[in-house]
Amino acid sequence: MKVLIVHAHPEPQSFTAALRDRAVATLEGLGHAVKVSDLYAMRWNPVASAADFSSRENPDYLVYALEQRLGVKKQSIAADIQGELDKLLWADLLILNFPIFWFSAPAMLKGWIDRVLVSGVCYGGKRFYDQGGLAGKRAMITVTLGGREHMFGEGAIHGPLEDMLRPILRGTLAYVGYDVLAPFVAWHVPYISAEARQDFLVAYEQRLQGLADEQPLVFPKLAQFDEALYPLS
Amino acid sequence: MKVLIVHAHPEPQSFTAALRDRAVATLEGLGHAVKVSDLYAMRWNPVASAADFSSRENPDYLVYALEQRLGVKKQSIAADIQGELDKLLWADLLILNFPIFWFSAPAMLKGWIDRVLVSGVCYGGKRFYDQGGLAGKRAMITVTLGGREHMFGEGAIHGPLEDMLRPILRGTLAYVGYDVLAPFVAWHVPYISAEARQDFLVAYEQRLQGLADEQPLVFPKLAQFDEALYPLS
Repeated sequence: MKVLIVHAHPEPQSFTAALRDRAVATLEGLGHAVKVSDLYAMRWNPVASAADFSSRENPDYLVYALEQRLGVKKQSIAADIQGELDKLLWADLLILNFPIFWFSAPAMLKGWIDRVLVSGVCYGGKRFYDQGGLAGKRAMITVTLGGREHMFGEGAIHGPLEDMLRPILRGTLAYVGYDVLAPFVAWHVPYISAEARQDFLVAYEQRLQGLADEQPLVFPKLAQFDEALYPLS
Repeated sequence: MKVLIVHAHPEPQSFTAALRDRAVATLEGLGHAVKVSDLYAMRWNPVASAADFSSRENPDYLVYALEQRLGVKKQSIAADIQGELDKLLWADLLILNFPIFWFSAPAMLKGWIDRVLVSGVCYGGKRFYDQGGLAGKRAMITVTLGGREHMFGEGAIHGPLEDMLRPILRGTLAYVGYDVLAPFVAWHVPYISAEARQDFLVAYEQRLQGLADEQPLVFPKLAQFDEALYPLS
């Protein structure tokens, strides 16, 4: 299996980084090939802009998705985007590894999503959800957060974490065709003991060792909708 | 009323920018004071990092929220953050004005949220939801998107738009104490006629004129939970 881990944390010594390192060691130990994009270390540019295209279909008015589509075809898309896209297409499994900022990804990682999941390759027209450009591949998110586990779930103060993560799980990863696995969540990280952190690392390692047998989360399939995308039933 | 509009779109001539301009004209016409943060025009830095603090409580290990808390107190937080925070605290109404990228905010705007909604001022400890630091103020989001209206809602292919927007509506704006108004949504924008765009501008103007009478969306209140944040009922 080929694995891409995209990591985004402003502190190089963070526990989130320890999760990344444990994933690399575990997956390589299982014989998989692993690449890591460490966005802060790479000084990744998260801002989608006109500067992402060396030539434009419409130089007077930027429609970002349209220029992505043409930019990939004509190889006029920025080199940093193409480099990440190559890794993305190489990988059978994508792991997004990040601390929860505002119940979602840090801007650094959001900008990787905005720029790298290019229209025309990852999705486009009727190519989304199970028909997405990355169908047949798997993805998961590995997240750290400050909240305690009992603050999430039905009736809990923040509701189910999966509901807060819906734009990334369903609206992004499932949208481009990935089979999306359940998130791996390390709770209350800034406040827990070194032993509790070790427990999370061990649980993560075990989770990664059994990944092949996991069933993905369930999302809509295009066959459930008509040509105009109205529900069939 | 004092209004801050935070605008993030990579194309200066976008319809999203027309919505921003219509809001400024309408609100100023009603006698309100309006400030605009145009993040692309400002070349806003969306990346939360150690560089945001001129001195650090812990120079060896970055806990971003902790350094925010101390940085605001000691005036060691970056000048661009302090400038935006001043506008945020000045405003009675915050409007986030953006195109939907991946069912959420562009990285440029996400990075404004990551950096400007500082711990210790906007939230902290038990100061969140109705007890948040910005309680008493109102916020709304004004968004453009490519999808059609029938693709959203119960049973629709993407489900309710408000569910996709949960991290920003509930997890961000309601979390810091805002009374959050329903989003203003312009659907299918890249594909519609100039007349249809005018209709959205007129509808937006009418919406803004009646804003004072609107009831906010309903979110959890801390009084519904015990000291450890378990639900009381």
